[in-house]
Amino acid sequence: MSQLAVWIVGAAGHVGTCTLAGWAALRAGLMPPTGLVTVGDPLGALPLAGFDEVAFGGHELRERSLAEAARALVAEGILPAAVVEHPAVAAAVAAAQAELRPGIAGSGGWDELQRIRADLAGFRDRHGAARVVVLNVASTEADPPDVRDAGALPDEPEALLAAVQGGRRLPASSVYAAAALDLGMAYVNFTPSTGADLPGLDALARARGAVHAGADGKTGQTLVKTVLAPMFAVRRLRVQSWVSHNILGNEDGRALDDPGRRAAKQRSKAAPLAAILGYAPESRVGIDYVPSYGDWKLAWDRIVFEGFGGAQMSLELTWRGSDTALAAPLCIDLIRLVELAQRRGERGALHHLALFFKSPLGTAEHRLERQWQTLLAHLLPDEAA
Amino acid sequence: MSQLAVWIVGAAGHVGTCTLAGWAALRAGLMPPTGLVTVGDPLGALPLAGFDEVAFGGHELRERSLAEAARALVAEGILPAAVVEHPAVAAAVAAAQAELRPGIAGSGGWDELQRIRADLAGFRDRHGAARVVVLNVASTEADPPDVRDAGALPDEPEALLAAVQGGRRLPASSVYAAAALDLGMAYVNFTPSTGADLPGLDALARARGAVHAGADGKTGQTLVKTVLAPMFAVRRLRVQSWVSHNILGNEDGRALDDPGRRAAKQRSKAAPLAAILGYAPESRVGIDYVPSYGDWKLAWDRIVFEGFGGAQMSLELTWRGSDTALAAPLCIDLIRLVELAQRRGERGALHHLALFFKSPLGTAEHRLERQWQTLLAHLLPDEAA
Amino acid sequence: MSQLAVWIVGAAGHVGTCTLAGWAALRAGLMPPTGLVTVGDPLGALPLAGFDEVAFGGHELRERSLAEAARALVAEGILPAAVVEHPAVAAAVAAAQAELRPGIAGSGGWDELQRIRADLAGFRDRHGAARVVVLNVASTEADPPDVRDAGALPDEPEALLAAVQGGRRLPASSVYAAAALDLGMAYVNFTPSTGADLPGLDALARARGAVHAGADGKTGQTLVKTVLAPMFAVRRLRVQSWVSHNILGNEDGRALDDPGRRAAKQRSKAAPLAAILGYAPESRVGIDYVPSYGDWKLAWDRIVFEGFGGAQMSLELTWRGSDTALAAPLCIDLIRLVELAQRRGERGALHHLALFFKSPLGTAEHRLERQWQTLLAHLLPDEAA
Amino acid sequence: MSQLAVWIVGAAGHVGTCTLAGWAALRAGLMPPTGLVTVGDPLGALPLAGFDEVAFGGHELRERSLAEAARALVAEGILPAAVVEHPAVAAAVAAAQAELRPGIAGSGGWDELQRIRADLAGFRDRHGAARVVVLNVASTEADPPDVRDAGALPDEPEALLAAVQGGRRLPASSVYAAAALDLGMAYVNFTPSTGADLPGLDALARARGAVHAGADGKTGQTLVKTVLAPMFAVRRLRVQSWVSHNILGNEDGRALDDPGRRAAKQRSKAAPLAAILGYAPESRVGIDYVPSYGDWKLAWDRIVFEGFGGAQMSLELTWRGSDTALAAPLCIDLIRLVELAQRRGERGALHHLALFFKSPLGTAEHRLERQWQTLLAHLLPDEAA
Repeated sequence: MSQLAVWIVGAAGHVGTCTLAGWAALRAGLMPPTGLVTVGDPLGALPLAGFDEVAFGGHELRERSLAEAARALVAEGILPAAVVEHPAVAAAVAAAQAELRPGIAGSGGWDELQRIRADLAGFRDRHGAARVVVLNVASTEADPPDVRDAGALPDEPEALLAAVQGGRRLPASSVYAAAALDLGMAYVNFTPSTGADLPGLDALARARGAVHAGADGKTGQTLVKTVLAPMFAVRRLRVQSWVSHNILGNEDGRALDDPGRRAAKQRSKAAPLAAILGYAPESRVGIDYVPSYGDWKLAWDRIVFEGFGGAQMSLELTWRGSDTALAAPLCIDLIRLVELAQRRGERGALHHLALFFKSPLGTAEHRLERQWQTLLAHLLPDEAA
Repeated sequence: MSQLAVWIVGAAGHVGTCTLAGWAALRAGLMPPTGLVTVGDPLGALPLAGFDEVAFGGHELRERSLAEAARALVAEGILPAAVVEHPAVAAAVAAAQAELRPGIAGSGGWDELQRIRADLAGFRDRHGAARVVVLNVASTEADPPDVRDAGALPDEPEALLAAVQGGRRLPASSVYAAAALDLGMAYVNFTPSTGADLPGLDALARARGAVHAGADGKTGQTLVKTVLAPMFAVRRLRVQSWVSHNILGNEDGRALDDPGRRAAKQRSKAAPLAAILGYAPESRVGIDYVPSYGDWKLAWDRIVFEGFGGAQMSLELTWRGSDTALAAPLCIDLIRLVELAQRRGERGALHHLALFFKSPLGTAEHRLERQWQTLLAHLLPDEAA
Repeated sequence: MSQLAVWIVGAAGHVGTCTLAGWAALRAGLMPPTGLVTVGDPLGALPLAGFDEVAFGGHELRERSLAEAARALVAEGILPAAVVEHPAVAAAVAAAQAELRPGIAGSGGWDELQRIRADLAGFRDRHGAARVVVLNVASTEADPPDVRDAGALPDEPEALLAAVQGGRRLPASSVYAAAALDLGMAYVNFTPSTGADLPGLDALARARGAVHAGADGKTGQTLVKTVLAPMFAVRRLRVQSWVSHNILGNEDGRALDDPGRRAAKQRSKAAPLAAILGYAPESRVGIDYVPSYGDWKLAWDRIVFEGFGGAQMSLELTWRGSDTALAAPLCIDLIRLVELAQRRGERGALHHLALFFKSPLGTAEHRLERQWQTLLAHLLPDEAA
Repeated sequence: MSQLAVWIVGAAGHVGTCTLAGWAALRAGLMPPTGLVTVGDPLGALPLAGFDEVAFGGHELRERSLAEAARALVAEGILPAAVVEHPAVAAAVAAAQAELRPGIAGSGGWDELQRIRADLAGFRDRHGAARVVVLNVASTEADPPDVRDAGALPDEPEALLAAVQGGRRLPASSVYAAAALDLGMAYVNFTPSTGADLPGLDALARARGAVHAGADGKTGQTLVKTVLAPMFAVRRLRVQSWVSHNILGNEDGRALDDPGRRAAKQRSKAAPLAAILGYAPESRVGIDYVPSYGDWKLAWDRIVFEGFGGAQMSLELTWRGSDTALAAPLCIDLIRLVELAQRRGERGALHHLALFFKSPLGTAEHRLERQWQTLLAHLLPDEAA
């Protein structure tokens, strides 16, 4: 009987498929745990869930099967063919395929909430799982500014659920979050969509003894920003402008070609800079959708800063990586870390996981090294002391 | 009467001249303190020496006057003409010119040590300075591996001085350090030369109640390395190779065109990487002397790292800045911070100043953010707690 | 008596001011003719107008004087202070100031045409100039697609003028062009605005014995494109994508921050690629307005191409230059070359000047080397043979 | 019966193997002819040797088989597995394996010349080939300056052969060239080694009715240089410095890690710049051997140039490509073009093939577009006219 079961919203996307196939590959020892924070020294010493015996399922809107999605990972150079075609991985993919259910798009109301709730409960019961982690890696939603407005939704969990029952619709990501948290499951939002980031949903998590973490995985350009910006801050070199461009060709890129969704992403990407520097330099964040790039994202940054005497100096960066291969190990880490938190009886938003996110819930700390220290202090207080 | 006097070894070089002219410009309010760590929040709250009433002098081998050197700063776009030509700055330059003495080249013995000692004591006495800081910004010396070999020199201060009296020669930078420390003055080594980094000289400092700090100012490419390498370490992304090239056209560049001097610099630049990552990736550090670059250094790095699934990802950086304008504010910070340490009765190597150096004495900590925290904990223990 | 007089539309802009101040600086021998095609071997052998004795005037919408504009060139690092403050240059700037007249914005009708015509004729007569060149370096106009539609305007010059008299309005750039050509003057369009690129205006030029050239100076990113794209074409390396971004902070950049004007510029910048390659790769051209960049434009390109065996290869470029310092020598070249053409009795669009333009009139040849050969063959037929 | 047979010196290297496997893949229609100049419009119209029925053989010093070498092409991402494992390609590799003979290293004398001659004649006779092309893609030789000194070797072919018979040794590449040309075969030198570039060997080629071409394939950084440098020349923008660095990890890189061999390569890479610009800017060409780069070469260039008014502007480039996949199609083109030249009765060095080489024999023309026009004019005189 599995202790842990994982439900992926957007399971047949690149990140979802790579997360579950990667989990199986790690279990079978087919590749090293490169990019995982929870393996090796020091976090490997924690009593985290092992890679054995975890059931995967998920919601999906697309037609394509997980097997097709896994083959796409090979075609795009994300995972080696020898890994994806290995019987252990193929079996895990097939098992998860049997647990795929149709997802919801855009927004949902009471009926959708009940259906998602039933899907999650059924999954948990079929696998007799003690704990379920629900991971959102579905496409970024268009920005729905109204639900986040003060007073737009009740802050009390029961009132919020009543409002939905009474006809109020929520963004799809929040419907999944509400269903998971209401069932006492853990919820991780790896996207900039709303998810559990509503006062009523955080309160729901606390009421049901559930935990949640988010938002928007810090995988590439923003990761680099949150180590470079502190350098300028510490050395008091004044950043005049920071121009960022991204080229990407995957489904995420296609979604972000939509101006509404792009706005949500851009806001998430721009915020850390001012927070770290203490002032807002001239800043641009551009996203170009160029299909032939596939999953291999290119991020370009050009920073102009002022030095002693006022002369302009510059730093220019080009980062090239597989968006999926950068995200998947963080998803695996998050599954293990929220499961541990839930097992230890924590409740609500997990602030110590800020390291993983562009828009960390409940903290203004964006500096990577400080986030890392916060994580260590929370998880390994004796060592950190 | 000045409380603090500053002696610059290599005073008429770009960094020396910019440090003393910059100090005068800050005193006169001619430019903002961009790039200074010791101004503003939080270190500005310390009882540091103000910019008023500090005497400058120094040793120099070159023929050119400080006034010529100051004009060169304008010609190379390091300081604005309006700053250098301002009467307050011109007066400071002229005052320092009157305190210039001929330096020593290569190495020195007992006679040179006595002469340098006399120069320093005379400077202190003429200005009635309570504390003198000696700052080494002379050209990098060729690597003298023998003096650093175990047993090459006595570890006891009096035995070391006796050996020199008996004919043992020291690298020039160590002669300056010995003279300063023997007089109880503070010594800062902003270069990769040997300076005070000999057991006998550290012991001399402790015996005389003097402090010292070094080595090799962390101004550009290495600064960036010490914030980027921790990112790869925290996220457990395996760095396969890190290739660095530098193009520079100033006197520092000409000196480094000599293979022996270049070796010292390259070692200083390469060490932090392995220390932070915990393993040594394939690494190259090249230095090209291209005179038309003048003081505007170009540093290029290309890092290849392995992600989840084994695919190669990359990060490429180009950093362009005035070598001098990056170094001078750190020199000013160091003068103020070692003066404070000496006033507070500290002795020997100042480990809390690692933030400023490529090869910090007495610590293996190269991560910028951690060095910053160490500095804060040492200087502002109440806030850091 | 001057043989040649030059009228600049947008005279107090960076390019206009740098063109006239640069002309005076060349006349006074204050700086070398770097960036000029018409000086030195081989084009210097042509009987081109010398730098002596040329009168400058122009239209302008802005309030600021040419003297202020010239000081701005120094402040932005485009021309040295010693050049701009030299009496010979200052005198030339003052003389041109006396010939400044208010320009027109947006579009114009019969009244504006008559006024512009009178301004130009008066300027010619006051200076007794045998030939006048009118140079358009005003801000890019918003795209007016209708006037370029087939049948939108009469193709016959007299019918076109009659239509304007009857109430038809033209883009401002075309009003200037119509006035100049109607007077038999030469017209150069250094911008992507419509200018003389209307069938009726080209016919007007032929009817009046006037010449014209354009459009949109090829100064930076597109210049590089038109030498790199032929390389891929010759070697049959298939370009999959070509992503271009520009960062600029000058008035041109502010104008292009307007989506309509940006569209005109983007179309002009994108066309050469497909023309040279023979197919259209995925392509993006972005323009970011970042005021602190001032006149120093940054262009970034990333090209992905497919090699033998299908693997993706890449070329990434960063170009940094002063937009104005790149444009002004081309403007000077064009003034001299159209004056020569007019003196030699040529008529209509000058196809041999394609080298200078992003959207050359009357030719689909964008390859720089071929354009250079065309220029040589036209101007020096004996040598080219 | 084959009309054409191809002998590759260094057959089991990456380029040699990719050339013969690629030839077979093109014959079988397994991949498109990307990167080939001789396919498609306009050169495809020439009566070139088809891809059918060509025998391959070669000399090799390494132990590894061609099959192993072919697998390495897949492992390094140069050719797809589906191509290399295809029966048609595997058969071609096996057939060439049967024609592999041990090569010579360093230098050779009369005995080696006789042995190589016998190997080549035997190969020709076994396949009844009307024409044989010998292609040198062996590792770059250390620079042997003496053989190129004036008077070091006889200029007359028979005297040169007599000198070798009398004990004079030649660089290995020249031994191969002498054997090939003496037999009336065509010789192509794709490396910077000496090869046929000795007056006596060129005379031998003319005497025997043989053709030869070289030297040093223009595949990447130099290719880009020879399109960019003409841009600066045409626009009269003065290049102050051009710094180039290369990172490569293949066997070529290991060979170039030897200072003597590197000197030969660097000279070959630096020459085109001064030839095109007409003056020599400050220039550096660095080569870093970093094994983990494998065949994927990274070339970085930074060019600083002076514009109108004297301000420094810059262009920075990063080129990333598979060294082998860039070279192999050029080798295939060269085989076809020298075979055609020989069939048409040409003799000696083929100047019209300058397009393919860093150090083209018999011409100072390095500009790619002009080389392309020269090629077209020679091969398709009617169209070029």
